[in-house]
Amino acid sequence: MKEIGFIGLGIMGKPMARNLLKAGYRVTVFNRTRSKAEELRADGATVADSIAEAAKCPVIVTMLPNGPDVRKVVLGSETAESADRSADNVIDYAAPGTLVIDMSSISPVVSKEIGAELAKKGIRMLDAPVSGGEPKAISGELAIMVGGDEKDFEEAKPLFDVLGSSALLVGPLGSGNTCKLTNQIIVAVNIAALSEGMVLAKKMGTDPEKVFQAIKGGLAGSSVMNAKMPMILAQDFKPGFKIDLHIKDLNNAIEAAEANGSPTPLASLVREMMKELHEDGNGQCDHSGLALYYQKLTGTLIES
Amino acid sequence: MKEIGFIGLGIMGKPMARNLLKAGYRVTVFNRTRSKAEELRADGATVADSIAEAAKCPVIVTMLPNGPDVRKVVLGSETAESADRSADNVIDYAAPGTLVIDMSSISPVVSKEIGAELAKKGIRMLDAPVSGGEPKAISGELAIMVGGDEKDFEEAKPLFDVLGSSALLVGPLGSGNTCKLTNQIIVAVNIAALSEGMVLAKKMGTDPEKVFQAIKGGLAGSSVMNAKMPMILAQDFKPGFKIDLHIKDLNNAIEAAEANGSPTPLASLVREMMKELHEDGNGQCDHSGLALYYQKLTGTLIES
Repeated sequence: MKEIGFIGLGIMGKPMARNLLKAGYRVTVFNRTRSKAEELRADGATVADSIAEAAKCPVIVTMLPNGPDVRKVVLGSETAESADRSADNVIDYAAPGTLVIDMSSISPVVSKEIGAELAKKGIRMLDAPVSGGEPKAISGELAIMVGGDEKDFEEAKPLFDVLGSSALLVGPLGSGNTCKLTNQIIVAVNIAALSEGMVLAKKMGTDPEKVFQAIKGGLAGSSVMNAKMPMILAQDFKPGFKIDLHIKDLNNAIEAAEANGSPTPLASLVREMMKELHEDGNGQCDHSGLALYYQKLTGTLIES
Repeated sequence: MKEIGFIGLGIMGKPMARNLLKAGYRVTVFNRTRSKAEELRADGATVADSIAEAAKCPVIVTMLPNGPDVRKVVLGSETAESADRSADNVIDYAAPGTLVIDMSSISPVVSKEIGAELAKKGIRMLDAPVSGGEPKAISGELAIMVGGDEKDFEEAKPLFDVLGSSALLVGPLGSGNTCKLTNQIIVAVNIAALSEGMVLAKKMGTDPEKVFQAIKGGLAGSSVMNAKMPMILAQDFKPGFKIDLHIKDLNNAIEAAEANGSPTPLASLVREMMKELHEDGNGQCDHSGLALYYQKLTGTLIES
């Protein structure tokens, strides 16, 4: 599988496609805004004129903003119900046996729906969302969470090894995105809980930095605390992972949960906080900016 | 300061007093249920007939269930407003210069109020709640969070070194309990977030154990995840730290927050979950039993 169609060359997709080229893959790239695809010509990419052209490769990687984008590219329409169906798509041009690897972060419900449509044509699919953001996309050290069949995962493993430092098969199709959304719920709620606890400490007249030092080694300690508390204490909310993107992930998580009868009281509450931050113009802040929500309510900065 | 009055010989207090005796302190013990005090006679304790008698020691340690108990023992009445005031108390019998070390987990608001009353009589106070539970109380490895003056902290340090593996001065009086409550908010919300994410994974058809393995090394990773996820996967909710005790801590946190204009949307929501677990008869479960709240709502067990 040295020949790959790569669709979606945004902040994440472009460095990922570049790493595949560097590793010796023949990559045919497509992007809606063609100029971004042209930039990869110098790296050895073939620039496709259409999705259909990229879809002729035996392996197709998609890296797109959200579920409707993936559905549009792969199946031709943004929703299952839409009458408006584009003829330039993957499903009508990919040969039976093709492996579609969707590395976008989307709803696992949508992953499963797309996979079911592809299966009718004998096209295989893995969902393989990543974490690590742009820096790890560039360095080829993404963490890749994969859903699908073990045989397909093994086939894709060399490609994952180029793009990431770890790739784990979590379960059947959709499990990659389920894993990512579970991760995103826990991270969002943990950042908010950290902010809620620390603003209380500050309001009570206790130095949040001292509290951080006192509790980080105990049961309250976490990667979120270690990574985000220094940012909050410095009031430095440069991303990192943006609030607007985390809202997208929580939307997908809550939609999937609703469709499956799973309650999300905490994720829903933290999504409301994030939406308010977005309304306040802080959507481009790092998600540690959840501290701003508590700071605004109390008129108190979480600092030493 | 080799002479200590020790008031409150419950699950935590008794092994703590015993460790002080072992370390060579002369300890005069008092407990409302006298039989518990008598048990320490064999360890060399002097059993006091009254709080007043124990209060004559130059250092007094209190280890009691909650703020009203500490107020009753130290000041004679459970609330600032109460007309019913016991003559058997600390404040009327302790000499000026006495150091009261309250190691109970109570509201920092109450700590400050008691400290202010004691100060009028020239009696000093530290608030020094602990974490680690009964096993660490027995082994002398508690984590001790201290609020008060640095000079008093230094004076108490040898005693803390007997009782704990770490003792940190976090800030002025009340800061020990503020630190503890911040810790308890973060822990409670993190356990609930873990449960919320993992029950969603299970409902989506993905193995929560696999999700745990995939995400524990990343930003969602935490001490809570490492300590509690194996318990949840095994459906083993033996305490550990009981839900009923965590409700007490969240009550104190939320009361203190309300008195100081600090919002607690997440802590309040998780307290509701814990209260429902209490109503269901699960108050004596470990706080990882928050998973039971989500399992009941979904009819789904978080297991492999």
